[in-house]
Amino acid sequence: MPYDSNNVFAKILRGELPSVKIFEDGQTLAFMDIMPSAEGHTLVIPKESSETIFDLSQTGASALMATTQRVAGAVRKALNCEGLMLVQLNGTAAGQSIAHVHFHIVPRSEGLDLRLHGRAKADPQVLEPIAARIRAQL
Amino acid sequence: MPYDSNNVFAKILRGELPSVKIFEDGQTLAFMDIMPSAEGHTLVIPKESSETIFDLSQTGASALMATTQRVAGAVRKALNCEGLMLVQLNGTAAGQSIAHVHFHIVPRSEGLDLRLHGRAKADPQVLEPIAARIRAQL
Repeated sequence: MPYDSNNVFAKILRGELPSVKIFEDGQTLAFMDIMPSAEGHTLVIPKESSETIFDLSQTGASALMATTQRVAGAVRKALNCEGLMLVQLNGTAAGQSIAHVHFHIVPRSEGLDLRLHGRAKADPQVLEPIAARIRAQL
Repeated sequence: MPYDSNNVFAKILRGELPSVKIFEDGQTLAFMDIMPSAEGHTLVIPKESSETIFDLSQTGASALMATTQRVAGAVRKALNCEGLMLVQLNGTAAGQSIAHVHFHIVPRSEGLDLRLHGRAKADPQVLEPIAARIRAQL
């Protein structure tokens, strides 16, 4: 399937939609999930136009991992979370809802219900102070 | 917490425990999950002694991602699965059960229940033919 350049993350990358940013470099962008399944739920995407891990170049995958590792460390310190889950859903059958490959970084505590997508939209004003704490740990 | 060199994956890396191998290079190893949550459930680990993503070197993380991407593509082709999930659980609070960092590669179909760990141990004789199909796609 050809890449759909009208997906939400493509629009965020082009600056057509807002996001609460955590980190950006030449190849990747990290920002707060607007439908968080836990406090500190962050997303990391490559700038390369790729729908799934299968379309992504190896260089792109390496950059995605480097940023994910770095941001995950900052999330852990900022949220002081016991556990942290990295999840990448490839394909709608796997639960992928935005057609641009991404890693979810989700803080987890003992007994926390495993919801990969939250059900409520978070206000950017709520997300911004959490983002600031994460950025401070990068 | 210091790395526990008696964890199951460390023993597999040292050849002290068997595994149904899919791929191996200087830095990584991929093998079938012995408690699969779906047919084709594969694990990828770095050879570096690291409990979580936070202990792993950036080089190690890059190698882990490269092998995960490669093996994920092979799993998809071999199992002809609609969707594929990558999951990494860091910390017991996140559900990590073996204290050596690893990616789960889990084929997923529409409506498949999200179990990160299976409940039944699979016989290596059952896993081997699946592994052979995956290897053939590398």
